Amino acid sequence: MSVTAAQGFTAAGIAAGIKENGNPDLALVVNNGPRRAAAGVFTSNRVKAAPVLWSEQVLKGGEVSAVVLNSGGANACTGPRGFQDTHATAEKAAAVLEGHSAGEIAVASTGLIGVPLPMDKLLPGIEKAAAELSAYGGEKAAIAIKTTDTVHKTAVATREGWTVGGMAKGAGMLAPGLATMLVVLTTDADVDGPGLDKALRDATRVTFDRVDSDGCMSTNDTVLLLASGASGITPAHDEFADAVRSVCDDLARMLIGDAEGASKDIRIEVVNAASEDDAVEVGRSIARNNLLKCAVHGEDPNWGRVLSAIGTTRAAFEPDRLNVAINGVWVCRNGSVGEDRELVDMRYREVRITADLAAGSESAVIWANDLTADYVHENSAYSS
Amino acid sequence: MSVTAAQGFTAAGIAAGIKENGNPDLALVVNNGPRRAAAGVFTSNRVKAAPVLWSEQVLKGGEVSAVVLNSGGANACTGPRGFQDTHATAEKAAAVLEGHSAGEIAVASTGLIGVPLPMDKLLPGIEKAAAELSAYGGEKAAIAIKTTDTVHKTAVATREGWTVGGMAKGAGMLAPGLATMLVVLTTDADVDGPGLDKALRDATRVTFDRVDSDGCMSTNDTVLLLASGASGITPAHDEFADAVRSVCDDLARMLIGDAEGASKDIRIEVVNAASEDDAVEVGRSIARNNLLKCAVHGEDPNWGRVLSAIGTTRAAFEPDRLNVAINGVWVCRNGSVGEDRELVDMRYREVRITADLAAGSESAVIWANDLTADYVHENSAYSS
Repeated sequence: MSVTAAQGFTAAGIAAGIKENGNPDLALVVNNGPRRAAAGVFTSNRVKAAPVLWSEQVLKGGEVSAVVLNSGGANACTGPRGFQDTHATAEKAAAVLEGHSAGEIAVASTGLIGVPLPMDKLLPGIEKAAAELSAYGGEKAAIAIKTTDTVHKTAVATREGWTVGGMAKGAGMLAPGLATMLVVLTTDADVDGPGLDKALRDATRVTFDRVDSDGCMSTNDTVLLLASGASGITPAHDEFADAVRSVCDDLARMLIGDAEGASKDIRIEVVNAASEDDAVEVGRSIARNNLLKCAVHGEDPNWGRVLSAIGTTRAAFEPDRLNVAINGVWVCRNGSVGEDRELVDMRYREVRITADLAAGSESAVIWANDLTADYVHENSAYSS
Repeated sequence: MSVTAAQGFTAAGIAAGIKENGNPDLALVVNNGPRRAAAGVFTSNRVKAAPVLWSEQVLKGGEVSAVVLNSGGANACTGPRGFQDTHATAEKAAAVLEGHSAGEIAVASTGLIGVPLPMDKLLPGIEKAAAELSAYGGEKAAIAIKTTDTVHKTAVATREGWTVGGMAKGAGMLAPGLATMLVVLTTDADVDGPGLDKALRDATRVTFDRVDSDGCMSTNDTVLLLASGASGITPAHDEFADAVRSVCDDLARMLIGDAEGASKDIRIEVVNAASEDDAVEVGRSIARNNLLKCAVHGEDPNWGRVLSAIGTTRAAFEPDRLNVAINGVWVCRNGSVGEDRELVDMRYREVRITADLAAGSESAVIWANDLTADYVHENSAYSS
């Protein structure tokens, strides 16, 4: 499964020694063709890690032969040396894989910001990973990109004769404009660069971009989609886009489900908005309200905190027409007290908040997590 | 001290029974003149509590004779009944104080959203408070408006023959556009409405508006400035504005110092910005970054989280020219590794973060708090 579910791809995941604890930390994904079309979406943070700057350039070339991913270090805010290190990583992979130039090798990194990568460990690791490349290596690759993830994350959508598969890592710093996530999707469908790009952007807009675990945007987010064309089939665009969105949706839900320290997954649906943008803005405002996130953790249906979050947005609404449901109970009607809050059962991990703006017919769903003492502990007890 | 430091004011604070635990919960501040000029600043949340809607109307009349404040209930999201309750509160105070109309009585409330006030307790409480009005009642009034505040908050600035004094409550839901704060300032200077309004807006813009404890904006924020003219002195505007700002600054710092569950006060200074707006935007983005707030709690000088927060803003800067100091140590220079982070001592309650945008000469200071397990506990363990 994972990135090797589609034909034409091999992958490997190994321990190069970048992580001091000896866990797997280097993954290699290779597109063996016949096509090497690719598309990518990157963090919208203006402070971008060296591998993001590098891979953005690689994508402009239109072809990606391989992706080198490492955990154990973000290579962000590392200055000119950081960029040289990424360049050297791509050069090394091109040399080891033969027949490719560094300009076709994408690089992605995740881990602590502001610390240079141990290149004396990383470069030999690429040789070791190349030696272990396999059509069954997708799981190992997914394991090697984990940081504080408790599980590795893979998903697959199989259609008539072709497949889209993928892997993801990410457990904190998840926010709109992408999260601290590294995602590699592969397909054996025969789709060209523009087709991949449209399918990927449309999919990330309604999946990864609507996941907001902690409101913090990473410097390293990378989502790549590689097509080998090995199935020989070119699906209709809508059919292909649907498969890509399905895999992205599955992976995005796994990211929320594995968020650092979280005890609840919060599904925030904004309905009857004047526009989709309004719905997304309101959903994000609710998703980022620390007081509400604490209340959800405490299984307290505190709808006043939902209203105060809605009130900070520019969306079209009248305060005395707002309705809010928590797990299906309309605790707020017309901006005031609604059904009895004692009716709300919040014992399960998934909590559903519905905000009805009564201002139109558009809607959007944002996923968030609760705020817990464990989150504070995980993110204050050590640098990550 | 407090609201009775200036001549011409009496105040009282009593237990009306609004709070079930029997603590003081009702305050009354009366301006005995000869002037009754006033100015007010209210929450910019579009979901406004009934007393905010009421007091905004009162301020349009230009005169405020008295303020009724209650803790134990916000009277927010309580529908038409909530507004009627506020109106009845003002009517009762006007009747008890004699010689005033309800249209001169401001009302402010704080506590849980979405729960109607117990008017059978509140209205008799106004009679009781009026009977206890005293020129020494400022402290008791400050105590009666506490919610989760651990201390009551008062400040005074005394000048040549005139005084500005005030009281504040607020301990959570502190964010730009004002916080869950109720503030009443009084002065015996002889200043007209427009003069009060300008001094108050200029002061709140650089004090309360730059306090961001938890990024959550309240439905009830109210800051009032009442002038009795009892000193007979009309100071120069700049001198008066300086005294108002001084009192607001003292109260704002007390709010941060008493924020729910906080263990650190974080002073974020953004320097060399292209504009003051840029400096404020960057400061707020840093102030609201949960990962950074956790790191500060853990006394971890994690400057990468500062850079990733800066990178989400629209401010003018180049990533490779950013510098960041934590407690005076420039741990990030030119967007990359700077001085040794081991040099940073973060053991004290106040932590100073300096972000140098290298893009101009403007600056701003934002105050924030760390994110702690205690904050999570206080805000998840019960409705507040």
